[in-house]
Amino acid sequence: MENAGFQRLIKLRQYMKEEGISLFLILHSDAHMSEYVSEADSDIEYLTGFSGENCTVAVTQTESHLWTDGRFFIQAEKEMLGSGTDLFRSGEDGVPKVEEFLKSHVNEGETVSCDGRRLSRKLFKKYDEAIKEKNGIFDTSSNVMDKVFSNRPKLPSEKLFILKDEFSGKSASDKLSDVRKHMKEKKADIFFLSSLCDIAWLLNLRGNDIPCTPVFYSFLLLSMDEGKLFINEEAVSKEIRDYLEGLNIKLCPYESVYDALSEDRGKAVLLDSDTVNERIYESFGEGTNFIEEINCTEVMKAVKNETEIKNTKKAHVIDAVAMCRFLYEIKTGKIDIEKEDEYTIGERLYRLREEGEGYIEPSFPTIAAYGENAALMHYTATPEMKSPLQKRGFLLVDSGGTYFTGTTDITRTIALGELTKKEREDFTLVLKSSLRLMRARFLDGTTGQNLDILARGVMWERGLDYKCGTGHGVGHVLAVHEGPNSIRWKIENAPDFTAHPLKPGMITTDEPGLYFEGEYGIRIENELLCVEDIKNEYGRYYSFENITLVPIDLDAIEPSMLTEEEKDQLNAYHEEVRKTIAPLLNEDEAKWLSEATRAVE
Amino acid sequence: MENAGFQRLIKLRQYMKEEGISLFLILHSDAHMSEYVSEADSDIEYLTGFSGENCTVAVTQTESHLWTDGRFFIQAEKEMLGSGTDLFRSGEDGVPKVEEFLKSHVNEGETVSCDGRRLSRKLFKKYDEAIKEKNGIFDTSSNVMDKVFSNRPKLPSEKLFILKDEFSGKSASDKLSDVRKHMKEKKADIFFLSSLCDIAWLLNLRGNDIPCTPVFYSFLLLSMDEGKLFINEEAVSKEIRDYLEGLNIKLCPYESVYDALSEDRGKAVLLDSDTVNERIYESFGEGTNFIEEINCTEVMKAVKNETEIKNTKKAHVIDAVAMCRFLYEIKTGKIDIEKEDEYTIGERLYRLREEGEGYIEPSFPTIAAYGENAALMHYTATPEMKSPLQKRGFLLVDSGGTYFTGTTDITRTIALGELTKKEREDFTLVLKSSLRLMRARFLDGTTGQNLDILARGVMWERGLDYKCGTGHGVGHVLAVHEGPNSIRWKIENAPDFTAHPLKPGMITTDEPGLYFEGEYGIRIENELLCVEDIKNEYGRYYSFENITLVPIDLDAIEPSMLTEEEKDQLNAYHEEVRKTIAPLLNEDEAKWLSEATRAVE
Repeated sequence: MENAGFQRLIKLRQYMKEEGISLFLILHSDAHMSEYVSEADSDIEYLTGFSGENCTVAVTQTESHLWTDGRFFIQAEKEMLGSGTDLFRSGEDGVPKVEEFLKSHVNEGETVSCDGRRLSRKLFKKYDEAIKEKNGIFDTSSNVMDKVFSNRPKLPSEKLFILKDEFSGKSASDKLSDVRKHMKEKKADIFFLSSLCDIAWLLNLRGNDIPCTPVFYSFLLLSMDEGKLFINEEAVSKEIRDYLEGLNIKLCPYESVYDALSEDRGKAVLLDSDTVNERIYESFGEGTNFIEEINCTEVMKAVKNETEIKNTKKAHVIDAVAMCRFLYEIKTGKIDIEKEDEYTIGERLYRLREEGEGYIEPSFPTIAAYGENAALMHYTATPEMKSPLQKRGFLLVDSGGTYFTGTTDITRTIALGELTKKEREDFTLVLKSSLRLMRARFLDGTTGQNLDILARGVMWERGLDYKCGTGHGVGHVLAVHEGPNSIRWKIENAPDFTAHPLKPGMITTDEPGLYFEGEYGIRIENELLCVEDIKNEYGRYYSFENITLVPIDLDAIEPSMLTEEEKDQLNAYHEEVRKTIAPLLNEDEAKWLSEATRAVE
Repeated sequence: MENAGFQRLIKLRQYMKEEGISLFLILHSDAHMSEYVSEADSDIEYLTGFSGENCTVAVTQTESHLWTDGRFFIQAEKEMLGSGTDLFRSGEDGVPKVEEFLKSHVNEGETVSCDGRRLSRKLFKKYDEAIKEKNGIFDTSSNVMDKVFSNRPKLPSEKLFILKDEFSGKSASDKLSDVRKHMKEKKADIFFLSSLCDIAWLLNLRGNDIPCTPVFYSFLLLSMDEGKLFINEEAVSKEIRDYLEGLNIKLCPYESVYDALSEDRGKAVLLDSDTVNERIYESFGEGTNFIEEINCTEVMKAVKNETEIKNTKKAHVIDAVAMCRFLYEIKTGKIDIEKEDEYTIGERLYRLREEGEGYIEPSFPTIAAYGENAALMHYTATPEMKSPLQKRGFLLVDSGGTYFTGTTDITRTIALGELTKKEREDFTLVLKSSLRLMRARFLDGTTGQNLDILARGVMWERGLDYKCGTGHGVGHVLAVHEGPNSIRWKIENAPDFTAHPLKPGMITTDEPGLYFEGEYGIRIENELLCVEDIKNEYGRYYSFENITLVPIDLDAIEPSMLTEEEKDQLNAYHEEVRKTIAPLLNEDEAKWLSEATRAVE
């Protein structure tokens, strides 16, 4: 198969030569440091064919490399075949970091170029330091990729809608007050926000500019008494315009942001160097007093309020009904597995979710991966690339929905028929791992870094591992991946990154797995709400409430590997699933659910 | 009981008034940021009576507060009674941090004073920032405490000795080469070292200036081809002088360091802002290019070489013989417990250790704490303050020795007779906790923050906790507390502090406990050597080798609370203790050891 990236790479190198650029850097990002980007920002996919996330490309006249993390190694190898770009497996022995690569590949006085709009200030500083060691020049103004990617699609600007207080639980005006209180403490004149989820959360507005994330392209500049929202006018209806006016927020054209900021030069600007792009910094200009910290809105939005929690639980019940119907159809032979493939089965699940009350869109593209494809952690089947299903082995389905009530994320691995002993044992290990984290009790101040080993230790004891975090925060009618809470043992960019303590109201996934290249993949994913537990002379304890209510396939477990404690925990969970979901199903489905949630002895 | 601190506090306030100081800060530290300080630096004890570590005092005209951590809460309350200084329980709800206290207690333009020699640059910056918010002045040059503490003892300068290569495993000349290689990488002209353990380690020299830590007061300034050691001449014999000359290291008077540094102004100086004091920084002066990082020697000395490991294991065998004899005498009634008290029993243990080959000194003052005194985590009995022993309950003994072969640190909690059911259950919990950490297997990159919950989780599950870390690094013929390795869930000064991954060759203690004020305290402490485990497609796994070889009191356990896995682990441990130590004991002792290490069923 030919890879279109190869010719594009040749073109890029020509332009680089013409402009005197020795090394060109491309980040998988947009002007807002979004995790998922729209097609307008798909430079890396355009150049290499790789469609995953969390990647960086460095091109010189003789080399081209793409860094990505363990979730994407197998996918990247496949997709980049013939592109002329090689894979750097981030984190593995002998693989340089981007900044190390810069140090070793930039010669005295050479120019490195990168689009400053897709580069955070924090990353700019790190790379600039590496380049400076060789007296290199870091040019963030040119963007030769625009010439290569000449048919670049336009940035979307879909219509906004208001997330009403009955869903958000707190008015935008109250949220703005909280932010301004914080600005006052920090002695800031201005709060500049470019992270799309934070803007959407703060203003109780949603959009549809990024697939599976109901956000809208914009920048927000807040002073103590007014605000400016930089956004494409076509996205804003009369209703929204009036709503924003009520909040004393003025509309300005999206593209005008870079020119507008110099007005505030010299002021004290509160902003997050991790999400604000370098060109924004340059636009404020010298003499501006930058006060840098993680956006205060990040923790505010991660701690869900009572309304959000109540609603999210509703969303999980609605979502569980769709998932249970899906499992019922597969497990009872209602659909003929052998006539399905990964793509068609995924489509079936989309249809089932669409029936749910208040459904907006998938919270991310469904991963329905059969057999060895499930070893690719973030594999997505397409009409062109998909495997047929068989009556044996595992089908891994990682999916979720965004509803007006909340966002869900769930993975179930389903036995489609006969399993080998090793498959059953591995499934049981993943279950043990998931259960151990779920039953944790921990003191206030505990971070996901402290907790990760509860899940991962089950693997490590046996010389196994999964090459990704154990869990991530989940947004409320927002991105399915959200900070600052997460459950991971390694903080990649330490010491820049501080693991944030888990607080009551935060929702984090619990998704350990096992992945064997060329064989199969297993993942079980539930969402855990952090809740208050006992309080005594040692402090405040928290624990997790499981809010995902879908059975775990008992056909895949090896009961002898479970302790009594684990069996009790699993049985109690299944009892709750049955009690809550069965009344919402038809008779046949409920009968199946009853069997699927039977007690394990 | 009268507390002499009260009058001294009045005096201090007078001097503060005279010099226009609104707030005076005192740190428990010396010019080298040592953990344990000599009497010459015991300002806090002089002023408040509190004799523990890790504390800070802030004095204004109307308030005086001392911050310390959970290990010392009970002790501090007792010792500071009537001193006029109150306890701030660091880390508890509602207790301000020092910098928060400064913000709320410094008024516009006021002066805060602190001895800059006892303040690290890092802490200076943090406090200075807090003070600047109120346009306050931070004066680090005056030291009114010198006037109050008029009979301050002189800084010791005991004779140095060489730790021969057969003990150190690597010559000073090779270590200096490693450091200079690192300086080259960092483009540093100068490496400035003030941490006493690092200087001692780097030069393979030892001293006797700080109780229980064989180090010597000095500063070391290294350039690429020579060095200067700032030290009191009387500490240096002809042999040492020749030895240093062989390393091209010149001797300079200790006190001359502050004047000497301006010679190197403008150079690139590599140093650690966490251990170098503020006045040193000021002495280098403006225009100096400070390259700041954790001392490279810290990781170098934490990863023990083969000789150090072999020798440390020898030290543990020698130490175990003393400990076993001590336990034998207590458990078999060879000594009449009821005629002993905490102090005399501690003295007996000192005598037994002194018999060991190559013994230098205790690695820290023995904690022999009976009954409720053991709830004071760092209690030390004195001839004046001690409790008699009885034939019931627990005696906690935390002790260790420094030998030419290595440094040990061990805690055993001993049943002196009848125990309550709750005492046995709590002892078993501590044992379970200790065993769970000990059997960990983990991937390269794992930190003590990741591992802590393995031990602590046993407590958290039951709504319990211990208010200290689970383990600390141990030096080799150096400080018994050493970084950068540790096992703790909370990094107090985050985000400044990066938890360092555990690496093969590092030695860390495993010492969970339970402490009930007014009742009893239990701690079990072993030392764990990090070793290579399996290596496979997931990476390099490490695990722990237990190098402490002393029985755990089986009279105190509740076998029904142990899983089969835990019983096997305990029995295997005790078998190794018996096999290794019995041959070194006399017949009666060996017979007792055989019984004390019996298999638990």
